[in-house]
Amino acid sequence: MIDCGEGTQIRMRQMGAKINRLGHIFISHLHGDHCFGLIGLISSFGMLNRTAELHIHAQADLEKIMKVQLDYFCSDLSFEIIFHHVNPRKHELIFEDRSISVYSIPLKHRVPSCGFLFEEKPRDRHIIREMIDFYNIPTWKIPKIKQGDDFITEDGEIIPNDQLTIAPEPPKRFAYCSDTAYSEKIIPIIEGVDCLYHEATFMEDEAQRAKETFHSTARQAGEIALKAKVKQLIIGHYSARYINQQDILKETKMGFENTLLGEDMKIYEI
Amino acid sequence: MIDCGEGTQIRMRQMGAKINRLGHIFISHLHGDHCFGLIGLISSFGMLNRTAELHIHAQADLEKIMKVQLDYFCSDLSFEIIFHHVNPRKHELIFEDRSISVYSIPLKHRVPSCGFLFEEKPRDRHIIREMIDFYNIPTWKIPKIKQGDDFITEDGEIIPNDQLTIAPEPPKRFAYCSDTAYSEKIIPIIEGVDCLYHEATFMEDEAQRAKETFHSTARQAGEIALKAKVKQLIIGHYSARYINQQDILKETKMGFENTLLGEDMKIYEI
Repeated sequence: MIDCGEGTQIRMRQMGAKINRLGHIFISHLHGDHCFGLIGLISSFGMLNRTAELHIHAQADLEKIMKVQLDYFCSDLSFEIIFHHVNPRKHELIFEDRSISVYSIPLKHRVPSCGFLFEEKPRDRHIIREMIDFYNIPTWKIPKIKQGDDFITEDGEIIPNDQLTIAPEPPKRFAYCSDTAYSEKIIPIIEGVDCLYHEATFMEDEAQRAKETFHSTARQAGEIALKAKVKQLIIGHYSARYINQQDILKETKMGFENTLLGEDMKIYEI
Repeated sequence: MIDCGEGTQIRMRQMGAKINRLGHIFISHLHGDHCFGLIGLISSFGMLNRTAELHIHAQADLEKIMKVQLDYFCSDLSFEIIFHHVNPRKHELIFEDRSISVYSIPLKHRVPSCGFLFEEKPRDRHIIREMIDFYNIPTWKIPKIKQGDDFITEDGEIIPNDQLTIAPEPPKRFAYCSDTAYSEKIIPIIEGVDCLYHEATFMEDEAQRAKETFHSTARQAGEIALKAKVKQLIIGHYSARYINQQDILKETKMGFENTLLGEDMKIYEI
Protein backbone atom coordinates (compact mmCIF):
# COMPACT_ATOMS: atom_id res chain seq x y z
CA MET A 1 0.00 0.00 0.00
CA ILE A 2 1.21 3.47 -0.80
CA ASP A 3 0.07 6.09 1.73
CA CYS A 4 -2.81 5.63 4.12
CA GLY A 5 -5.09 8.61 4.68
CA GLU A 6 -8.12 8.71 6.97
CA GLY A 7 -10.76 6.18 5.94
CA THR A 8 -8.41 3.87 4.02
CA GLN A 9 -9.61 0.77 5.86
CA ILE A 10 -13.20 1.70 5.09
CA ARG A 11 -12.41 1.99 1.38
CA MET A 12 -10.56 -1.32 1.46
CA ARG A 13 -13.67 -2.99 2.85
CA GLN A 14 -15.87 -1.27 0.26
CA MET A 15 -13.54 -2.53 -2.47
CA GLY A 16 -13.41 -6.06 -1.07
CA ALA A 17 -9.61 -5.82 -0.87
CA LYS A 18 -7.91 -8.82 0.74
CA ILE A 19 -6.84 -6.98 3.85
CA ASN A 20 -4.67 -9.85 5.13
CA ARG A 21 -2.47 -9.86 2.05
CA LEU A 22 -1.17 -6.41 2.93
CA GLY A 23 2.38 -6.76 4.21
CA HIS A 24 4.11 -3.48 3.38
CA ILE A 25 2.95 0.12 3.61
CA PHE A 26 5.02 2.92 2.04
CA ILE A 27 4.36 6.42 3.37
CA SER A 28 5.49 9.27 1.11
CA HIS A 29 5.41 12.07 3.67
CA LEU A 30 3.97 13.02 7.01
CA HIS A 31 0.90 15.03 6.11
CA GLY A 32 -2.39 13.83 7.52
CA ASP A 33 -3.99 12.90 4.22
CA HIS A 34 -1.17 10.42 3.70
CA CYS A 35 -0.96 8.76 7.13
CA PHE A 36 -3.97 9.41 9.43
CA GLY A 37 -5.56 6.09 8.43
CA LEU A 38 -2.67 3.98 9.77
CA ILE A 39 -3.74 3.77 13.40
CA GLY A 40 -7.28 2.67 12.50
CA LEU A 41 -6.04 0.09 10.03
CA ILE A 42 -3.57 -1.32 12.56
CA SER A 43 -6.25 -1.43 15.28
CA SER A 44 -8.56 -3.34 12.97
CA PHE A 45 -5.78 -5.79 12.09
CA GLY A 46 -5.40 -6.35 15.83
CA MET A 47 -9.11 -7.06 16.26
CA LEU A 48 -8.95 -9.52 13.38
CA ASN A 49 -6.08 -11.29 15.22
CA ARG A 50 -3.63 -10.81 12.38
CA THR A 51 -0.39 -12.66 12.97
CA ALA A 52 1.78 -11.67 9.97
CA GLU A 53 4.31 -8.90 10.44
CA LEU A 54 3.34 -5.49 9.08
CA HIS A 55 6.16 -3.44 7.58
CA ILE A 56 5.87 0.32 7.46
CA HIS A 57 8.38 2.20 5.32
CA ALA A 58 8.35 5.86 6.29
CA GLN A 59 10.36 8.73 7.64
CA ALA A 60 11.67 8.14 11.16
CA ASP A 61 9.34 10.72 12.73
CA LEU A 62 6.31 8.57 11.99
CA GLU A 63 7.46 5.84 14.34
CA LYS A 64 7.83 8.35 17.17
CA ILE A 65 4.36 9.81 16.56
CA MET A 66 2.73 6.42 16.23
CA LYS A 67 4.45 4.90 19.23
CA VAL A 68 2.34 6.99 21.61
CA GLN A 69 -0.85 5.84 19.90
CA LEU A 70 0.23 2.24 19.53
CA ASP A 71 1.23 2.02 23.18
CA TYR A 72 -2.16 3.33 24.24
CA PHE A 73 -4.59 1.80 21.75
CA CYS A 74 -2.77 -1.32 20.56
CA SER A 75 -0.77 -2.50 23.56
CA ASP A 76 -1.64 -6.17 23.03
CA LEU A 77 -1.35 -6.50 19.28
CA SER A 78 -1.32 -10.05 17.93
CA PHE A 79 1.32 -9.17 15.31
CA GLU A 80 4.53 -7.21 15.01
CA ILE A 81 4.88 -3.84 13.34
CA ILE A 82 8.29 -3.20 11.87
CA PHE A 83 9.20 0.36 10.97
CA HIS A 84 11.79 0.88 8.25
CA HIS A 85 13.15 4.41 8.16
CA VAL A 86 13.23 6.03 4.75
CA ASN A 87 15.47 8.98 3.98
CA PRO A 88 13.31 11.09 1.65
CA ARG A 89 16.33 13.01 0.35
CA LYS A 90 18.07 9.97 -1.10
CA HIS A 91 17.29 7.82 -4.12
CA GLU A 92 18.08 4.32 -2.92
CA LEU A 93 16.83 0.77 -2.71
CA ILE A 94 14.57 0.62 0.33
CA PHE A 95 13.07 -2.84 -0.04
CA GLU A 96 13.39 -5.96 -2.14
CA ASP A 97 12.15 -9.50 -2.08
CA ARG A 98 12.19 -12.31 -4.65
CA SER A 99 9.91 -10.53 -7.06
CA ILE A 100 10.22 -6.80 -6.55
CA SER A 101 12.56 -3.93 -5.73
CA VAL A 102 11.37 -0.62 -4.30
CA TYR A 103 13.36 2.59 -4.57
CA SER A 104 12.77 5.99 -2.99
CA ILE A 105 12.38 9.04 -5.25
CA PRO A 106 13.25 12.37 -3.59
CA LEU A 107 10.45 14.88 -4.29
CA LYS A 108 10.08 18.62 -3.80
CA HIS A 109 7.41 19.49 -1.25
CA ARG A 110 6.81 21.78 1.76
CA VAL A 111 7.90 18.96 4.04
CA PRO A 112 10.37 16.16 3.23
CA SER A 113 8.59 13.88 0.79
CA CYS A 114 9.51 11.00 -1.43
CA GLY A 115 7.90 8.95 -4.13
CA PHE A 116 8.44 5.25 -4.75
CA LEU A 117 9.58 3.28 -7.76
CA PHE A 118 8.35 -0.33 -7.85
CA GLU A 119 10.39 -2.50 -10.16
CA GLU A 120 9.55 -6.12 -10.85
CA LYS A 121 12.50 -8.45 -11.06
CA PRO A 122 12.96 -10.38 -14.32
CA ARG A 123 10.91 -13.54 -14.15
CA ASP A 124 11.93 -17.03 -15.19
CA ARG A 125 11.17 -18.13 -18.76
CA HIS A 126 8.07 -20.30 -19.18
CA ILE A 127 8.95 -23.91 -20.02
CA ILE A 128 6.80 -25.55 -22.69
CA ARG A 129 4.95 -28.49 -21.15
CA GLU A 130 5.07 -30.60 -24.34
CA MET A 131 8.86 -30.28 -24.56
CA ILE A 132 9.33 -31.74 -21.08
CA ASP A 133 7.40 -34.83 -22.22
CA PHE A 134 8.97 -35.00 -25.66
CA TYR A 135 12.59 -34.88 -24.45
CA ASN A 136 11.80 -36.56 -21.14
CA ILE A 137 13.43 -33.72 -19.20
CA PRO A 138 14.02 -34.66 -15.55
CA THR A 139 12.31 -32.43 -12.98
CA TRP A 140 15.57 -31.36 -11.35
CA LYS A 141 16.76 -29.76 -14.59
CA ILE A 142 13.69 -27.59 -15.08
CA PRO A 143 14.69 -24.63 -12.84
CA LYS A 144 17.94 -24.16 -14.73
CA ILE A 145 16.18 -24.37 -18.10
CA LYS A 146 13.70 -21.73 -16.92
CA GLN A 147 16.72 -19.54 -16.24
CA GLY A 148 18.02 -20.02 -19.81
CA ASP A 149 20.05 -23.26 -19.89
CA ASP A 150 19.96 -25.49 -22.95
CA PHE A 151 19.11 -29.18 -22.51
CA ILE A 152 21.40 -32.07 -23.51
CA THR A 153 19.65 -35.33 -24.26
CA GLU A 154 21.04 -38.77 -23.34
CA ASP A 155 22.26 -39.03 -26.95
CA GLY A 156 24.28 -35.85 -26.48
CA GLU A 157 21.98 -33.73 -28.63
CA ILE A 158 21.84 -30.06 -27.58
CA ILE A 159 18.32 -28.60 -27.53
CA PRO A 160 18.66 -24.81 -27.48
CA ASN A 161 16.74 -23.03 -24.73
CA ASP A 162 14.54 -21.06 -27.11
CA GLN A 163 13.03 -24.31 -28.36
CA LEU A 164 12.12 -25.32 -24.82
CA THR A 165 10.87 -22.08 -23.33
CA ILE A 166 9.04 -18.89 -24.12
CA ALA A 167 10.00 -15.47 -22.83
CA PRO A 168 8.31 -14.25 -19.63
CA GLU A 169 6.32 -11.04 -19.38
CA PRO A 170 8.82 -8.19 -19.33
CA PRO A 171 9.20 -6.81 -15.79
CA LYS A 172 6.91 -3.84 -15.06
CA ARG A 173 7.94 -0.57 -13.48
CA PHE A 174 5.55 1.75 -11.64
CA ALA A 175 6.46 5.12 -10.15
CA TYR A 176 4.40 7.04 -7.59
CA CYS A 177 5.18 10.76 -7.22
CA SER A 178 3.04 12.69 -4.75
CA ASP A 179 3.06 15.29 -3.23
CA THR A 180 5.52 17.30 -5.28
CA ALA A 181 6.16 20.51 -7.12
CA TYR A 182 7.42 20.23 -10.71
CA SER A 183 10.87 18.71 -10.45
CA GLU A 184 12.94 17.50 -13.38
CA LYS A 185 15.31 15.79 -10.96
CA ILE A 186 13.00 12.80 -10.85
CA ILE A 187 13.21 12.19 -14.62
CA PRO A 188 16.34 9.97 -14.66
CA ILE A 189 14.76 7.78 -11.94
CA ILE A 190 11.36 7.31 -13.55
CA GLU A 191 12.51 7.24 -17.18
CA GLY A 192 10.53 4.81 -19.29
CA VAL A 193 8.34 3.38 -16.51
CA ASP A 194 5.25 1.48 -17.63
CA CYS A 195 3.10 3.70 -15.46
CA LEU A 196 3.69 6.95 -13.62
CA TYR A 197 1.30 8.26 -10.99
CA HIS A 198 1.96 11.97 -10.67
CA GLU A 199 -0.02 14.49 -8.69
CA ALA A 200 -1.87 17.26 -10.51
CA THR A 201 -3.30 19.27 -7.65
CA PHE A 202 -3.99 22.41 -9.66
CA MET A 203 -4.51 23.57 -13.22
CA GLU A 204 -2.45 26.25 -14.91
CA ASP A 205 -4.90 28.96 -13.77
CA GLU A 206 -3.54 28.32 -10.26
CA ALA A 207 0.12 27.96 -11.26
CA GLN A 208 1.14 30.55 -8.69
CA ARG A 209 -0.69 28.73 -5.90
CA ALA A 210 0.85 25.45 -7.05
CA LYS A 211 4.29 27.01 -6.73
CA GLU A 212 3.58 28.42 -3.26
CA THR A 213 2.23 25.14 -1.91
CA PHE A 214 4.81 22.94 -3.67
CA HIS A 215 2.28 21.14 -5.81
CA SER A 216 2.13 20.52 -9.56
CA THR A 217 -0.27 21.66 -12.21
CA ALA A 218 -1.91 19.28 -14.65
CA ARG A 219 0.26 20.69 -17.45
CA GLN A 220 3.41 20.08 -15.43
CA ALA A 221 2.44 16.47 -14.72
CA GLY A 222 2.08 15.92 -18.46
CA GLU A 223 5.42 17.60 -19.10
CA ILE A 224 7.22 15.32 -16.66
CA ALA A 225 5.59 12.26 -18.23
CA LEU A 226 6.65 13.40 -21.69
CA LYS A 227 10.22 14.21 -20.73
CA ALA A 228 10.59 10.94 -18.82
CA LYS A 229 9.17 9.01 -21.80
CA VAL A 230 6.85 7.02 -19.54
CA LYS A 231 4.35 4.70 -21.18
CA GLN A 232 1.29 5.80 -19.23
CA LEU A 233 0.43 8.58 -16.79
CA ILE A 234 -2.22 8.53 -14.06
CA ILE A 235 -2.93 11.85 -12.40
CA GLY A 236 -4.59 12.52 -9.05
CA HIS A 237 -4.62 14.54 -5.78
CA TYR A 238 -6.90 17.20 -7.28
CA SER A 239 -7.70 20.32 -5.30
CA ALA A 240 -11.33 20.36 -4.14
CA ARG A 241 -11.82 23.60 -6.06
CA TYR A 242 -12.08 21.71 -9.34
CA ILE A 243 -15.57 20.29 -9.76
CA ASN A 244 -15.01 19.00 -13.27
CA GLN A 245 -11.94 16.81 -13.33
CA GLN A 246 -12.28 16.31 -17.10
CA ASP A 247 -10.76 19.77 -17.47
CA ILE A 248 -7.72 18.66 -15.48
CA LEU A 249 -7.39 15.62 -17.71
CA LYS A 250 -7.69 17.72 -20.85
CA GLU A 251 -4.93 20.07 -19.70
CA THR A 252 -2.62 17.13 -18.96
CA LYS A 253 -3.37 15.42 -22.26
CA MET A 254 -2.30 18.51 -24.18
CA GLY A 255 1.24 17.61 -23.11
CA PHE A 256 0.95 13.83 -22.72
CA GLU A 257 -1.78 11.97 -24.55
CA ASN A 258 -1.76 8.62 -22.73
CA THR A 259 -3.07 10.01 -19.46
CA LEU A 260 -5.75 8.53 -17.23
CA LEU A 261 -7.72 10.35 -14.58
CA GLY A 262 -7.06 8.88 -11.14
CA GLU A 263 -10.47 8.20 -9.61
CA ASP A 264 -11.60 6.86 -6.23
CA MET A 265 -12.17 3.12 -6.12
CA LYS A 266 -11.14 2.60 -9.73
CA ILE A 267 -8.80 -0.26 -10.60
CA TYR A 268 -6.03 0.34 -13.15
CA GLU A 269 -4.10 -2.39 -14.89
CA ILE A 270 -0.46 -1.64 -15.58
CA MET B 1 -20.63 16.12 18.68
CA ILE B 2 -20.52 12.93 20.67
CA ASP B 3 -17.53 10.71 19.84
CA CYS B 4 -15.48 10.99 16.68
CA GLY B 5 -14.40 7.75 15.03
CA GLU B 6 -12.34 7.46 11.86
CA GLY B 7 -14.09 9.02 8.88
CA THR B 8 -16.32 11.37 10.89
CA GLN B 9 -15.29 14.43 8.87
CA ILE B 10 -16.06 12.57 5.66
CA ARG B 11 -19.55 11.70 6.91
CA MET B 12 -20.10 15.30 7.99
CA ARG B 13 -19.33 16.47 4.48
CA GLN B 14 -21.58 13.79 2.99
CA MET B 15 -24.38 14.95 5.28
CA GLY B 16 -23.81 18.63 4.53
CA ALA B 17 -23.32 19.30 8.24
CA LYS B 18 -22.34 22.87 9.08
CA ILE B 19 -18.84 22.02 10.17
CA ASN B 20 -18.13 25.49 11.52
CA ARG B 21 -20.97 25.35 14.02
CA LEU B 22 -19.27 22.56 15.90
CA GLY B 23 -17.91 23.98 19.14
CA HIS B 24 -17.87 21.06 21.58
CA ILE B 25 -16.90 17.42 21.19
CA PHE B 26 -17.66 14.91 23.95
CA ILE B 27 -15.61 11.69 23.90
CA SER B 28 -17.09 8.79 25.84
CA HIS B 29 -13.98 6.62 26.07
CA LEU B 30 -10.60 6.10 24.49
CA HIS B 31 -11.19 3.30 22.03
CA GLY B 32 -10.28 3.98 18.41
CA ASP B 33 -13.81 3.83 17.03
CA HIS B 34 -14.70 6.72 19.32
CA CYS B 35 -11.73 9.05 18.81
CA PHE B 36 -9.53 8.23 15.77
CA GLY B 37 -11.35 10.83 13.66
CA LEU B 38 -10.36 13.77 15.86
CA ILE B 39 -6.94 14.50 14.39
CA GLY B 40 -8.26 14.54 10.82
CA LEU B 41 -11.19 16.76 11.76
CA ILE B 42 -8.91 19.19 13.58
CA SER B 43 -6.45 19.25 10.66
CA SER B 44 -9.25 20.07 8.27
CA PHE B 45 -10.52 22.83 10.56
CA GLY B 46 -6.99 24.22 10.40
CA MET B 47 -6.94 24.15 6.61
CA LEU B 48 -10.30 25.94 6.56
CA ASN B 49 -8.74 28.65 8.77
CA ARG B 50 -11.25 28.16 11.57
CA THR B 51 -10.91 30.78 14.27
CA ALA B 52 -13.46 29.72 16.90
CA GLU B 53 -12.22 27.74 19.89
CA LEU B 54 -12.83 24.00 19.81
CA HIS B 55 -13.66 22.38 23.13
CA ILE B 56 -12.93 18.70 23.65
CA HIS B 57 -14.43 17.04 26.71
CA ALA B 58 -12.67 13.76 27.36
CA GLN B 59 -10.57 11.76 29.76
CA ALA B 60 -7.21 13.36 30.54
CA ASP B 61 -5.23 10.71 28.63
CA LEU B 62 -6.63 11.91 25.32
CA GLU B 63 -4.90 15.27 25.62
CA LYS B 64 -1.55 13.53 26.17
CA ILE B 65 -2.02 11.23 23.19
CA MET B 66 -3.20 14.02 20.92
CA LYS B 67 -0.52 16.49 21.95
CA VAL B 68 2.14 14.51 20.06
CA GLN B 69 0.02 14.51 16.92
CA LEU B 70 -1.09 18.12 17.25
CA ASP B 71 2.48 19.32 17.78
CA TYR B 72 3.60 17.51 14.64
CA PHE B 73 0.68 17.89 12.25
CA CYS B 74 -1.08 21.03 13.48
CA SER B 75 1.69 23.23 14.86
CA ASP B 76 0.30 26.41 13.31
CA LEU B 77 -3.42 26.02 13.94
CA SER B 78 -5.52 29.12 13.38
CA PHE B 79 -7.71 28.34 16.40
CA GLU B 80 -7.38 27.14 19.97
CA ILE B 81 -8.22 23.65 21.18
CA ILE B 82 -9.32 23.53 24.80
CA PHE B 83 -9.31 20.16 26.51
CA HIS B 84 -11.69 19.68 29.43
CA HIS B 85 -10.89 16.62 31.50
CA VAL B 86 -13.84 14.39 32.28
CA ASN B 87 -13.77 11.93 35.16
CA PRO B 88 -15.69 8.95 33.76
CA ARG B 89 -16.34 7.54 37.24
CA LYS B 90 -18.35 10.54 38.45
CA HIS B 91 -21.82 11.75 37.56
CA GLU B 92 -21.39 15.50 37.45
CA LEU B 93 -22.06 18.64 35.48
CA ILE B 94 -19.28 18.90 32.93
CA PHE B 95 -20.51 21.78 30.78
CA GLU B 96 -23.24 24.39 30.67
CA ASP B 97 -24.08 27.47 28.71
CA ARG B 98 -27.21 29.63 28.46
CA SER B 99 -29.30 26.91 26.88
CA ILE B 100 -27.92 23.55 27.89
CA SER B 101 -26.33 21.51 30.69
CA VAL B 102 -24.27 18.40 30.06
CA TYR B 103 -23.67 15.73 32.70
CA SER B 104 -21.39 12.71 32.66
CA ILE B 105 -22.92 9.25 33.17
CA PRO B 106 -20.51 6.60 34.52
CA LEU B 107 -20.77 3.44 32.41
CA LYS B 108 -19.47 -0.10 32.78
CA HIS B 109 -16.95 -1.02 30.08
CA ARG B 110 -13.56 -2.70 29.65
CA VAL B 111 -11.93 0.72 29.88
CA PRO B 112 -13.20 3.77 31.79
CA SER B 113 -16.19 5.02 29.84
CA CYS B 114 -18.95 7.53 30.40
CA GLY B 115 -22.14 8.54 28.70
CA PHE B 116 -23.53 12.04 28.49
CA LEU B 117 -26.84 13.58 29.51
CA PHE B 118 -27.82 16.68 27.55
CA GLU B 119 -30.43 18.75 29.33
CA GLU B 120 -31.98 21.83 27.84
CA LYS B 121 -32.54 24.69 30.25
CA PRO B 122 -36.12 25.92 30.65
CA ARG B 123 -36.86 28.50 28.01
CA ASP B 124 -38.62 31.83 28.44
CA ARG B 125 -42.39 31.91 27.91
CA HIS B 126 -43.55 33.22 24.51
CA ILE B 127 -45.14 36.67 24.79
CA ILE B 128 -48.26 37.15 22.69
CA ARG B 129 -47.56 39.85 20.13
CA GLU B 130 -51.15 41.21 20.19
CA MET B 131 -51.02 41.68 23.97
CA ILE B 132 -47.97 43.92 23.72
CA ASP B 133 -49.95 46.19 21.38
CA PHE B 134 -53.25 45.95 23.30
CA TYR B 135 -51.79 46.88 26.70
CA ASN B 136 -49.05 49.04 25.21
CA ILE B 137 -46.39 47.11 27.13
CA PRO B 138 -43.04 48.96 27.08
CA THR B 139 -40.13 47.04 25.56
CA TRP B 140 -38.06 47.09 28.75
CA LYS B 141 -40.76 45.14 30.61
CA ILE B 142 -40.89 42.29 28.09
CA PRO B 143 -37.94 40.18 29.37
CA LYS B 144 -39.48 40.03 32.87
CA ILE B 145 -42.91 39.08 31.50
CA LYS B 146 -41.30 36.31 29.45
CA GLN B 147 -39.92 35.01 32.73
CA GLY B 148 -43.38 34.94 34.35
CA ASP B 149 -44.12 38.44 35.72
CA ASP B 150 -47.63 39.87 35.54
CA PHE B 151 -48.11 43.29 33.93
CA ILE B 152 -49.59 46.28 35.74
CA THR B 153 -51.23 48.86 33.47
CA GLU B 154 -51.03 52.63 34.06
CA ASP B 155 -54.51 52.36 35.64
CA GLY B 156 -53.17 49.82 38.16
CA GLU B 157 -54.95 46.89 36.58
CA ILE B 158 -53.05 43.59 37.01
CA ILE B 159 -52.91 41.48 33.87
CA PRO B 160 -51.93 37.95 34.91
CA ASN B 161 -48.99 36.43 33.07
CA ASP B 162 -50.97 33.56 31.58
CA GLN B 163 -53.08 36.06 29.64
CA LEU B 164 -49.92 37.60 28.13
CA THR B 165 -47.80 34.58 27.38
CA ILE B 166 -47.91 30.99 26.33
CA ALA B 167 -45.78 28.24 27.78
CA PRO B 168 -42.51 27.42 25.97
CA GLU B 169 -41.63 24.00 24.65
CA PRO B 170 -40.75 21.84 27.64
CA PRO B 171 -36.97 21.38 27.91
CA LYS B 172 -35.73 18.22 26.23
CA ARG B 173 -33.38 15.67 27.74
CA PHE B 174 -31.22 13.29 25.70
CA ALA B 175 -28.94 10.62 27.12
CA TYR B 176 -26.13 8.84 25.25
CA CYS B 177 -24.89 5.57 26.75
CA SER B 178 -22.16 3.75 24.79
CA ASP B 179 -20.10 1.60 25.20
CA THR B 180 -21.49 -0.17 28.24
CA ALA B 181 -22.51 -3.47 29.74
CA TYR B 182 -25.98 -3.65 31.26
CA SER B 183 -25.88 -1.36 34.28
CA GLU B 184 -28.89 -0.35 36.37
CA LYS B 185 -26.77 2.31 38.06
CA ILE B 186 -27.48 4.65 35.15
CA ILE B 187 -31.26 4.48 35.64
CA PRO B 188 -31.64 7.29 38.21
CA ILE B 189 -29.59 9.58 35.94
CA ILE B 190 -31.43 8.93 32.71
CA GLU B 191 -34.92 8.49 34.20
CA GLY B 192 -37.66 9.92 32.00
CA VAL B 193 -35.41 11.36 29.28
CA ASP B 194 -37.10 12.22 25.99
CA CYS B 195 -34.62 10.09 24.13
CA LEU B 196 -32.06 7.52 25.18
CA TYR B 197 -29.34 6.28 22.85
CA HIS B 198 -28.14 2.97 24.24
CA GLU B 199 -25.77 0.54 22.62
CA ALA B 200 -27.02 -2.91 21.60
CA THR B 201 -23.86 -4.55 20.31
CA PHE B 202 -25.17 -8.12 20.51
CA MET B 203 -28.40 -10.09 20.65
CA GLU B 204 -29.31 -12.52 23.40
CA ASP B 205 -27.72 -15.39 21.46
CA GLU B 206 -24.39 -13.76 22.26
CA ALA B 207 -25.22 -12.77 25.86
CA GLN B 208 -22.06 -14.48 27.12
CA ARG B 209 -19.88 -12.61 24.65
CA ALA B 210 -21.66 -9.36 25.59
CA LYS B 211 -20.78 -9.98 29.23
CA GLU B 212 -17.13 -10.76 28.45
CA THR B 213 -16.64 -7.69 26.28
CA PHE B 214 -18.68 -5.37 28.53
CA HIS B 215 -21.32 -4.67 25.92
CA SER B 216 -25.12 -4.88 26.07
CA THR B 217 -27.59 -7.08 24.27
CA ALA B 218 -30.60 -5.69 22.44
CA ARG B 219 -32.88 -7.12 25.13
CA GLN B 220 -30.86 -5.41 27.85
CA ALA B 221 -31.03 -2.05 26.08
CA GLY B 222 -34.83 -2.39 26.03
CA GLU B 223 -34.87 -3.35 29.68
CA ILE B 224 -32.89 -0.28 30.71
CA ALA B 225 -35.21 1.93 28.65
CA LEU B 226 -38.27 0.38 30.30
CA LYS B 227 -36.93 0.61 33.83
CA ALA B 228 -35.80 4.20 33.30
CA LYS B 229 -39.20 5.09 31.84
CA VAL B 230 -37.60 6.93 28.92
CA LYS B 231 -39.88 8.23 26.18
CA GLN B 232 -37.91 6.89 23.23
CA LEU B 233 -34.96 4.58 22.71
CA ILE B 234 -32.48 4.58 19.82
CA ILE B 235 -30.16 1.61 19.63
CA GLY B 236 -26.84 1.29 17.81
CA HIS B 237 -23.22 0.03 17.85
CA TYR B 238 -24.20 -3.32 16.35
CA SER B 239 -21.62 -6.04 15.99
CA ALA B 240 -20.69 -6.66 12.36
CA ARG B 241 -21.85 -10.28 12.75
CA TYR B 242 -25.47 -9.20 12.46
CA ILE B 243 -26.41 -8.71 8.83
CA ASN B 244 -30.09 -8.12 9.47
CA GLN B 245 -30.47 -5.34 12.01
CA GLN B 246 -34.25 -5.72 12.00
CA ASP B 247 -33.76 -8.76 14.24
CA ILE B 248 -31.88 -6.61 16.74
CA LEU B 249 -34.73 -4.09 16.65
CA LYS B 250 -37.32 -6.82 17.16
CA GLU B 251 -35.51 -8.17 20.21
CA THR B 252 -35.31 -4.72 21.77
CA LYS B 253 -38.95 -3.95 21.03
CA MET B 254 -40.05 -7.03 22.94
CA GLY B 255 -39.00 -5.15 26.07
CA PHE B 256 -39.51 -1.55 24.97
CA GLU B 257 -41.86 -0.76 22.12
CA ASN B 258 -40.85 2.80 21.24
CA THR B 259 -37.44 1.86 19.90
CA LEU B 260 -35.76 3.12 16.73
CA LEU B 261 -32.90 1.50 14.91
CA GLY B 262 -29.87 3.77 14.87
CA GLU B 263 -28.72 3.96 11.26
CA ASP B 264 -25.80 5.66 9.54
CA MET B 265 -26.58 9.13 8.18
CA LYS B 266 -30.16 9.10 9.45
CA ILE B 267 -31.50 12.17 11.23
CA TYR B 268 -33.68 11.69 14.32
CA GLU B 269 -35.87 14.37 15.82
CA ILE B 270 -36.16 14.34 19.58
